[in-house]
Amino acid sequence: MHAVVYHGPGRKSWEEVPKPSIQDDTDAVVKVDSVTICGTDLHILKGDVPAVTEGRILGHEAVGTVESVGSGVKNLSPGDRVLVSCITACGSCRFCREARYGQCLGGGGWILGHLVDGTQAEYVRVPFADTSTFAIPAGVTDEEVLMLADIGPTGYEVGVLNGHVRPGDVVAVVGAGPIGLSSIMGAKLFSPAHVVAIDLAESRLEAAKRVGADVVVNATHDDALEVVRGLTDGLGADVAIEAVGVPGTFEQCAALVRPGGTVANVGVHGKPATLHLEDLWIRDVTITTGLVDTYSTPTLLRLLASRQLDLGQLVTHRFGLGDFMQAYEVFANAADTQALKVVLSARS
Amino acid sequence: MHAVVYHGPGRKSWEEVPKPSIQDDTDAVVKVDSVTICGTDLHILKGDVPAVTEGRILGHEAVGTVESVGSGVKNLSPGDRVLVSCITACGSCRFCREARYGQCLGGGGWILGHLVDGTQAEYVRVPFADTSTFAIPAGVTDEEVLMLADIGPTGYEVGVLNGHVRPGDVVAVVGAGPIGLSSIMGAKLFSPAHVVAIDLAESRLEAAKRVGADVVVNATHDDALEVVRGLTDGLGADVAIEAVGVPGTFEQCAALVRPGGTVANVGVHGKPATLHLEDLWIRDVTITTGLVDTYSTPTLLRLLASRQLDLGQLVTHRFGLGDFMQAYEVFANAADTQALKVVLSARS
Amino acid sequence: MHAVVYHGPGRKSWEEVPKPSIQDDTDAVVKVDSVTICGTDLHILKGDVPAVTEGRILGHEAVGTVESVGSGVKNLSPGDRVLVSCITACGSCRFCREARYGQCLGGGGWILGHLVDGTQAEYVRVPFADTSTFAIPAGVTDEEVLMLADIGPTGYEVGVLNGHVRPGDVVAVVGAGPIGLSSIMGAKLFSPAHVVAIDLAESRLEAAKRVGADVVVNATHDDALEVVRGLTDGLGADVAIEAVGVPGTFEQCAALVRPGGTVANVGVHGKPATLHLEDLWIRDVTITTGLVDTYSTPTLLRLLASRQLDLGQLVTHRFGLGDFMQAYEVFANAADTQALKVVLSARS
Amino acid sequence: MHAVVYHGPGRKSWEEVPKPSIQDDTDAVVKVDSVTICGTDLHILKGDVPAVTEGRILGHEAVGTVESVGSGVKNLSPGDRVLVSCITACGSCRFCREARYGQCLGGGGWILGHLVDGTQAEYVRVPFADTSTFAIPAGVTDEEVLMLADIGPTGYEVGVLNGHVRPGDVVAVVGAGPIGLSSIMGAKLFSPAHVVAIDLAESRLEAAKRVGADVVVNATHDDALEVVRGLTDGLGADVAIEAVGVPGTFEQCAALVRPGGTVANVGVHGKPATLHLEDLWIRDVTITTGLVDTYSTPTLLRLLASRQLDLGQLVTHRFGLGDFMQAYEVFANAADTQALKVVLSARS
Repeated sequence: MHAVVYHGPGRKSWEEVPKPSIQDDTDAVVKVDSVTICGTDLHILKGDVPAVTEGRILGHEAVGTVESVGSGVKNLSPGDRVLVSCITACGSCRFCREARYGQCLGGGGWILGHLVDGTQAEYVRVPFADTSTFAIPAGVTDEEVLMLADIGPTGYEVGVLNGHVRPGDVVAVVGAGPIGLSSIMGAKLFSPAHVVAIDLAESRLEAAKRVGADVVVNATHDDALEVVRGLTDGLGADVAIEAVGVPGTFEQCAALVRPGGTVANVGVHGKPATLHLEDLWIRDVTITTGLVDTYSTPTLLRLLASRQLDLGQLVTHRFGLGDFMQAYEVFANAADTQALKVVLSARS
Repeated sequence: MHAVVYHGPGRKSWEEVPKPSIQDDTDAVVKVDSVTICGTDLHILKGDVPAVTEGRILGHEAVGTVESVGSGVKNLSPGDRVLVSCITACGSCRFCREARYGQCLGGGGWILGHLVDGTQAEYVRVPFADTSTFAIPAGVTDEEVLMLADIGPTGYEVGVLNGHVRPGDVVAVVGAGPIGLSSIMGAKLFSPAHVVAIDLAESRLEAAKRVGADVVVNATHDDALEVVRGLTDGLGADVAIEAVGVPGTFEQCAALVRPGGTVANVGVHGKPATLHLEDLWIRDVTITTGLVDTYSTPTLLRLLASRQLDLGQLVTHRFGLGDFMQAYEVFANAADTQALKVVLSARS
Repeated sequence: MHAVVYHGPGRKSWEEVPKPSIQDDTDAVVKVDSVTICGTDLHILKGDVPAVTEGRILGHEAVGTVESVGSGVKNLSPGDRVLVSCITACGSCRFCREARYGQCLGGGGWILGHLVDGTQAEYVRVPFADTSTFAIPAGVTDEEVLMLADIGPTGYEVGVLNGHVRPGDVVAVVGAGPIGLSSIMGAKLFSPAHVVAIDLAESRLEAAKRVGADVVVNATHDDALEVVRGLTDGLGADVAIEAVGVPGTFEQCAALVRPGGTVANVGVHGKPATLHLEDLWIRDVTITTGLVDTYSTPTLLRLLASRQLDLGQLVTHRFGLGDFMQAYEVFANAADTQALKVVLSARS
Repeated sequence: MHAVVYHGPGRKSWEEVPKPSIQDDTDAVVKVDSVTICGTDLHILKGDVPAVTEGRILGHEAVGTVESVGSGVKNLSPGDRVLVSCITACGSCRFCREARYGQCLGGGGWILGHLVDGTQAEYVRVPFADTSTFAIPAGVTDEEVLMLADIGPTGYEVGVLNGHVRPGDVVAVVGAGPIGLSSIMGAKLFSPAHVVAIDLAESRLEAAKRVGADVVVNATHDDALEVVRGLTDGLGADVAIEAVGVPGTFEQCAALVRPGGTVANVGVHGKPATLHLEDLWIRDVTITTGLVDTYSTPTLLRLLASRQLDLGQLVTHRFGLGDFMQAYEVFANAADTQALKVVLSARS
């Protein structure tokens, strides 16, 4: 089969590799029907994630069809169509028992395209298949389900639920890339009074409006703090969601939040931030961080099926599975291509 | 009457001042029976709290007897014995309606001994008396009730409840001064598996043991992280409570906490800390800050009355009300005097 | 002035009575601009609420203009436009401090039109005015604000929040009268997958569809249990909201709910129901009851202002203030008139 | 091997049966070291649980040693010592993913000694062994761990946690049999102000005092409602725990609870109760029911190990494994024998 293979910083290729097979009795091998590229894959390609070694097949998001299952798999059969989630769960460790699958101590967590071969391939071996895949309900498209492999539950769990968004809230989302947009869509499920999207790029702010932000701030020339205070009697946002991953945007969130509010960090950070405890100690602020657990994926699937959530609109570019090099190019140059999410499909 | 009057950084005196009277119809004037000194008073005397102006009477903690009430006071009568809390609550603003009295927008919050004259005096005017005092139940001593004017609810609300201490938890408390000890006692109410107290002073660690810590770490020569990991299969503390107020101890708490755990900041900080988001973003950590609200004071009063809580043991030194200069001396030199809380009483 | 005066079971009249004046320094006297009639008023007129004595002015919902305030009122001034809520809060008792205003121990709770004279009058005296009225924000109409005097927060707090409605839930609402419709609208704020409205009257089911129910069941001829199970893989509703107030509908809710779900009772009951503990003990069911507290009113006002909530559509009939006898007639004969909420306005 | 075999209502015997073997690859076969008898076993023997068919081996609680494991078992090896819990969890169904294992849809739930052969035997086959057993920590005895097979987590989860017991609460526990006593011990972990135990038998009330109730009421001649009101300014208990399972005691709990409080039903009921909604609708009461899930078992094991919990004191009688008929006799005649929990051990 073919797959996207990592060959060290800056180097990858779509090349022939051995087809995966069942190694452990709880494995499934899944034929990849649709797959996408994540910002994290770009980080890997820059060399930022040294745990990814040369020869690794990338990718941690797919919709596919079960081809074979190990003898210990109870709930999947060949032919079943499934969502392969970015998080693998052993299902029996302490953290899996608490539905904190992202912190799995039993060999799961984020492993696909990281510690084991991933989904940017014609076939993928999925460990702990019973607890790491989700059946696809009737009435939804592969594309929208694919958005639940990572960014859907990440925005919802790490941004919206950690942030405790409530009806009537003013929610500030800093960063309107795919994960920020997913957070906006998740926040809208709770009927906030206002969602304020903050970014530097007009095209992203336009996307933010389309997915539900009613106020947008281009931080190149406007003062987000002033805008948020104007909406909140000077108090600040009920919830500030960090969806960029650099110190400045985190610090901005901490400045935007009202006494008693929450800063929910979703961004992937490479450097420390400054925490202004000299101001914050007295302000009753809660700050949360987190890796997605995918505990919300069944809920999000129901919301897709009932048309309460339209994550499919984040897909801007579509390719065949063999066009991975081009798809990476488009996705990596989002400033020019205005790509949000790209989908590669075995059927096209 | 006499009172402790602030005369600018480093200067205070016990001097004659006019006796306070009712200014607003929701005021009460309370005769001070017992009063204490807070670490915050020492900060004020260093000049760290510029909002405190010259001529201000210090103090925000007292047990006393109502002498007179304004026409709008419903629930207090002359002769009633009350706890005067560090937090004043207007009772009708947005934050008071949410029991977030420390953030009162209607003229309350921490004002006694800060923005209005305080309790280190023979009499004190208490604004919004109905919602800023607590009746003293039968069967408790003034001394133990006095501990609920500030440090009792501060440790309990900002440390223990914000930290979500649960039965079976491993709780690390960094700093074993009065507020850390109060946090330990509050944590014990939830039956943690272990409370680990961390400090640099042996005498404080001894006090921590007396109030319920079962493990103590002298950070001068022992590694708290190693101790905590040894108790938690290498995962870290369920809850880490910061009770010092300097960047290093906050950063230590962030290092001590397990994935999924909480850092509850209780310390009063004057400088920013470094937040290692490059490690924490993926670790599902919650960080909380807060000023006490005193919403828990009725609960803590019940716990005193039912002997579930013995905050009175924090009192190490006792004085007459006229001995304020000496009491400050003892309290400010805690390293030598081993003072935890000092009580000054009108009756002695 | 004129007012609706209760003269014992079955008897009321719009008659001349003395205009109210300030009795207590925390009172306000409010000129009634708009007022409505509640199902509870009909209960009183049947003699079901013996605490209401002859001569009492009815009504516990109004929008009005402050005419005068007592000396202890801090936050209101003559000329302010306010929502007069069904719940009066002393603001300082144990329950008011917990935002459980409906259970006020200090002389509040539901008293207007019950234990003291009410709002179906040209003027009303409002006790504890600071904590029992809400300022009216810009951009909303009196009519929609009036819906927040009782049914808005009742459906939202007692139905939706007590029921813990969550995104993706299947919510069954039994009873599609005003309070059931308000519950449906409140539930929609949380993006449930489905809201199933159950009633016996087609006209009410039509109204339920208009306010957001996507499935309706006429229990005259259809089996609600079968419908709900069909939507939930046979498990039952996540939340069942009782909005009628008779034993049968409560028991139906207990049958409709899934293991782990919640029955939120909103209906006012006059008789006991049968609780099938022989089935329920093992099913992890939570049942809640409650009187509205109005703690959510500020949130609902924000949601009106941001157009997330359109409670104004519940108003079906409009009258002048002098037409109270006719308005009662229309409201009491809802089966024929299809009245939901009637509004009487001083301006028309 | 030998086992207790059910032969229809009223009939059981300790008889020779085939030793169990691995049937499914996630099974373990466990040698039973210690085992107990549950009140539910007595119900089965009365014929109250028709799902239990003739020939079934009884028992759903054991501490034992793993003898063999199926090929799909990851975390257990022969020789491991484990707690066999009353709840079996498939680990991958919707409810298991929510830690609601008692409601398992994948073949688990309460099945041992019910739908499959149980633990009152020399060996037991344990399905889904990875997610249905718990490793035994150092420093605890088999006897006290055995108390966590059912009554420990049942009292804690279904009584104490569902009831939301909080520090300072007044908790009423109706029924002081083993499950009521376990609930009392669980409640004490949260430092309630008072635990009031209510029963008809003096011996059980004595036991209640020993495990931590500070007030006891013999309902034969004393009025529990009066006692509880006397402790609570007339308001009622914060939490009322039903630990009997008959209509009268449930109704008593609903009468005992304060506005805003919780009735947590733990008892196994065979008949409906009357729910006085005509009183309760306005009282903000929460009522919960539930089967144990055992999600708290890891926590309770930590609490045993740290000596915060002493469930071992519930063991009143000890037998060898061959003495099952005698042990049943003693346990079934608790009124005479004052048996609480009996333990049968293979080693004695």
